[in-house]
Amino acid sequence: MRIVVLAGGIGGARFLRGLRAAAPEADITVIGNTGDDIHLFGLKVCPDLDTVMYTLGGGINEEQGWGRADETFHIKEELAAYGVEPTWFGLGDRDFATHVIRTQMLGAGYPLSAVTEALCARWKPGVRLLPMTDDRVETHVAIQAEEGTRKVVHFQEYWVKLRAAMAAEAVVPVGADQSKPAPGVLEAISTADVILFPPSNPVVSIGAILAVPGIREAIAEAGVPVVGLSPIVGGAPVRGMADKVLAAVGVEATAAAVAAHYGSGLLDGWLVHTSDADAVADVEAAGIRCRAVPLLMADLDATAQMAREALTLAEEARA
Amino acid sequence: MRIVVLAGGIGGARFLRGLRAAAPEADITVIGNTGDDIHLFGLKVCPDLDTVMYTLGGGINEEQGWGRADETFHIKEELAAYGVEPTWFGLGDRDFATHVIRTQMLGAGYPLSAVTEALCARWKPGVRLLPMTDDRVETHVAIQAEEGTRKVVHFQEYWVKLRAAMAAEAVVPVGADQSKPAPGVLEAISTADVILFPPSNPVVSIGAILAVPGIREAIAEAGVPVVGLSPIVGGAPVRGMADKVLAAVGVEATAAAVAAHYGSGLLDGWLVHTSDADAVADVEAAGIRCRAVPLLMADLDATAQMAREALTLAEEARA
Repeated sequence: MRIVVLAGGIGGARFLRGLRAAAPEADITVIGNTGDDIHLFGLKVCPDLDTVMYTLGGGINEEQGWGRADETFHIKEELAAYGVEPTWFGLGDRDFATHVIRTQMLGAGYPLSAVTEALCARWKPGVRLLPMTDDRVETHVAIQAEEGTRKVVHFQEYWVKLRAAMAAEAVVPVGADQSKPAPGVLEAISTADVILFPPSNPVVSIGAILAVPGIREAIAEAGVPVVGLSPIVGGAPVRGMADKVLAAVGVEATAAAVAAHYGSGLLDGWLVHTSDADAVADVEAAGIRCRAVPLLMADLDATAQMAREALTLAEEARA
Repeated sequence: MRIVVLAGGIGGARFLRGLRAAAPEADITVIGNTGDDIHLFGLKVCPDLDTVMYTLGGGINEEQGWGRADETFHIKEELAAYGVEPTWFGLGDRDFATHVIRTQMLGAGYPLSAVTEALCARWKPGVRLLPMTDDRVETHVAIQAEEGTRKVVHFQEYWVKLRAAMAAEAVVPVGADQSKPAPGVLEAISTADVILFPPSNPVVSIGAILAVPGIREAIAEAGVPVVGLSPIVGGAPVRGMADKVLAAVGVEATAAAVAAHYGSGLLDGWLVHTSDADAVADVEAAGIRCRAVPLLMADLDATAQMAREALTLAEEARA
């Protein structure tokens, strides 16, 4: 079975670990979000790709969900001692090595997809990890600065520095309209048996991937079941700031509204959390098969069960 | 008093600490060797400049004489885990920050001299530290690879990786002939009251600095006392591989031979270690004032005393 998964960072990575356990024989291709990539200190940092790679490769800091286990922050301390900005992004020493290698390879002319493959040669994530594009795309967020004035910041600044404390007025994946899917992305979609949207952020993660021209169309035309898992439980994101960025695109932070946002043209099935069972009828009325099942990734077993539910719903949709 | 010092790494840095203690009111300009600079993992590393900066700024690892105190090596471990070469250069995590900032500033168009000044704004070394040149110079060493074949390696490879285990057949500061002294270098020399050669390597450190066109000439024409301290004690270098690289340029590893190598056209005075007192007559016969004094930099007091002896000899030469 060939499974294609569109993934953001922590939520996508944890779901993938469950999927790998639920379908150990499956051939899994992950299309990773690169819209939250950022250049820091001359280095190219790809937080979502790395979170997937570290999580599946056994190098993740389990407690925080991002960054490396057994990490130190001496470079960060030193950069701050030199007075170099920004100081708000938590680049650890072990993590730094990944960015150094990536930057050096990009500088030598390798595309991000080739760099990602080279990095994965070490981590052996058990999936094929592709960036959504080799082109530069950066998700920017418009916020209100002072009364009546707007300011546009990098998504990482909005999320990590400002902690999404204010409303997002617009979310723009800058460069997406000029980007092309990375090599292998469209081929993976067109030969997939099932396509999954994990409980990743529908706007800045999966939304950024779908903003790369050709990807949304390829998924819609693949002719195979497309099943998603709601990142919204009980009217709020399980983690992250999906509610803030959903508001920016005019979508309510409910499991049903997110399904409608993807739409029946894209989604065949949608899983909502058991506590959102009353959303099932609404989603099905919109032409999307829906089931209410536990959607909290408390541990690997619970997550693998979520993946099995998604694959079961896909089989139902196929029938 | 304006003092100009040509400095390599550990020996030069430690001497400078003594000089600063011996002449706290002096205006000291250090012309640092950049011939052993190396590009590693896309980063520009300047080992000698950093050793001077860290030693005078209080950040040095005192025991080993290079690198940062309280250092960790997590990036290095990770780069090795990724299988990235080279693995033989000891870049610590704290030290890494310096190279990241330097590389980013160079990439933004700042010359190395401006970058060095910016880095020193943090370390406040108490001297003005100038690279010998803003141009790229790399000291390469020719060694015998297999019987009858020669191989040329970067000086760092010869010294750090190969531990100078084999003879050096030639030492070439590649790019030196096309380089220009960094801004401020010739001005500092021409306005100096005294010029000192610390017990740094006469070939790969001070020799590389003198290989930048204009510097040797400016020193010879400055009309002020030029005094050096022998890095050779009892026929061997106090530390390092000066004997190996002296052999490559046809100079015996003795205190007298090194003085003759610089020559009376450049040197006015030369200090040899007390155990080399029998060299004094030879050196003086070559037209260079010479004294035998303790030249082991065992602690700050001993080093300050060496600096005072050098300044005293300079005053004698001036008279």
